[in-house]
Amino acid sequence: MASISIPDPVPPATEDAENIRKAVQGWGTDEKALIEILGHRTAAQRAEIAVAYEGLYNETLLDRLHSELSGDFRSAMMLWTMDPAARDAKLAHKALKKKGDRHVWVLVEVACASSPDHHVAVRKAYCAAYSASLEEDVAACPLYKDPLKQFLVRLVSSYRYSGELVDDELARAEAAELHDAVVARKQTLHGDVARIVGSRSKPQLKATFERFRQEHGRAIDDVLEERRGDQLAAVLKTAVWCLACPEKHFAEVIRISIVGLGTDEESLTRAIVSRAEVDMKKVKEEYKARYRKTVTSDVNGDTSGYYNGILLTLVGPE
Amino acid sequence: MASISIPDPVPPATEDAENIRKAVQGWGTDEKALIEILGHRTAAQRAEIAVAYEGLYNETLLDRLHSELSGDFRSAMMLWTMDPAARDAKLAHKALKKKGDRHVWVLVEVACASSPDHHVAVRKAYCAAYSASLEEDVAACPLYKDPLKQFLVRLVSSYRYSGELVDDELARAEAAELHDAVVARKQTLHGDVARIVGSRSKPQLKATFERFRQEHGRAIDDVLEERRGDQLAAVLKTAVWCLACPEKHFAEVIRISIVGLGTDEESLTRAIVSRAEVDMKKVKEEYKARYRKTVTSDVNGDTSGYYNGILLTLVGPE
Repeated sequence: MASISIPDPVPPATEDAENIRKAVQGWGTDEKALIEILGHRTAAQRAEIAVAYEGLYNETLLDRLHSELSGDFRSAMMLWTMDPAARDAKLAHKALKKKGDRHVWVLVEVACASSPDHHVAVRKAYCAAYSASLEEDVAACPLYKDPLKQFLVRLVSSYRYSGELVDDELARAEAAELHDAVVARKQTLHGDVARIVGSRSKPQLKATFERFRQEHGRAIDDVLEERRGDQLAAVLKTAVWCLACPEKHFAEVIRISIVGLGTDEESLTRAIVSRAEVDMKKVKEEYKARYRKTVTSDVNGDTSGYYNGILLTLVGPE
Repeated sequence: MASISIPDPVPPATEDAENIRKAVQGWGTDEKALIEILGHRTAAQRAEIAVAYEGLYNETLLDRLHSELSGDFRSAMMLWTMDPAARDAKLAHKALKKKGDRHVWVLVEVACASSPDHHVAVRKAYCAAYSASLEEDVAACPLYKDPLKQFLVRLVSSYRYSGELVDDELARAEAAELHDAVVARKQTLHGDVARIVGSRSKPQLKATFERFRQEHGRAIDDVLEERRGDQLAAVLKTAVWCLACPEKHFAEVIRISIVGLGTDEESLTRAIVSRAEVDMKKVKEEYKARYRKTVTSDVNGDTSGYYNGILLTLVGPE
């Protein structure tokens, strides 16, 4: 369900590297050529190009993009060209320095919206880049207080079972526990709710949430959303979405980054770059169904130039 | 600091597999030959032998050892022959079914006494073997209550920074935090103490514990040990040892498994098998310094036969 298109046949990595070199050499930059090449290659192909480029020209591709480009276009191109695990590590590291719901989202996305193996790769990349573990930086982050902090530590430390096996009896029992805490409010959210959402596998959680909806007539994310002003409930809802239906979360991130005064380019770039190879097709469908607009038309309304160019390339045709 | 000895040159894996086959075929078993081969090979070599054996004889080496051997000798040979990550996953899974301090130790050992990358491999092996993640099984384990359970979840979920970089200022500040909680008792043990011990890198923790000792004249493990009857304090002390000086912990495990009524073969086997390729030489030195006996003499006093044979092979000469 990736949205990017790859040419067939794909040129050899050295040829791509040479064409990138031509685009960045001499006076001016051929931004279109950069989009045309990098915007139509998979993560593995971009990694090969970066290796070929460094071998040929004795400078890293990322360094060159940094010195050659600027503004939102540069951010998008660099995030896209990076290794996805290193990119997520960087996004999480940056998010830990800033206050606000949108930055908490980044941590939840990194922890919950990708595969468990990708998340382990992110944690390794984080250690390599920042000489600290992701979870120790979250645990020591002065911006968060317990119980939210405990929950975030749990999310970023997780390595969930990634098989398809689902225990229906467990789903029934844990749906009841979730109901006790979220609806009946007989328990705190930072007890069993945090444990269940923080540790169970994605297929198991989907079964549990479905059971919750069947037995209680409402979806758990709707109930959590009603707890206005409760930050833990809001983060739990984000985690539920990122785990069970990430396309809903990312459609919302894109929409929120566009509506309102000005554009939140950081969020817009992050959502599109990080989902283009994962589930952008589903994000676009969700977006259309929920907002009666297309991602493309909204991106066109709020962005321009080469920045618009790379975003639309990654979003793909509607 | 491994204690096992490897022949030079090492026979090809197929030759080892053929000799193992000879040892287990027909009437009776040549246990000595099994010890002679498997007891003198590294984990990577044992893995190659297992692959060669299965290719040649269409049965797994572990299955054959299981059907051929019995008792404590079988347990030791099977744990030794297994892939180390799968072995630790199995030990943790078993420990989660049983009550008692010695079983909590296993979880702490698995989480803290090996490298962060090995621990990730254990977590992957656990998911593959038990269709659940290690941390979700700890989090759902009915044998433990908060705050101990939260601490255990944190330990088994960790992926610590494994570089050598130490922040001295942080060590000073966190030594003071540890003092406030452990000595002055101004804070609970499940606050910053659990966070620091549960997330910081091993070199960082060693610096922090050393700072604690310098500033307060006593070692943190000694202070924690005095809190008799406080289970979290006891587990924290075990974690401190497994992180900063695992040889102390494993010397104690071996000693406790031997002294007293009967022998705790499960603990004895676990300690020797899991440390033979890691730090058994240091464990032996620590043992001699603390108990004025050698591991060999104590193992000889409490075990016999082939079980004694494999243990001494792994312990190596004193």
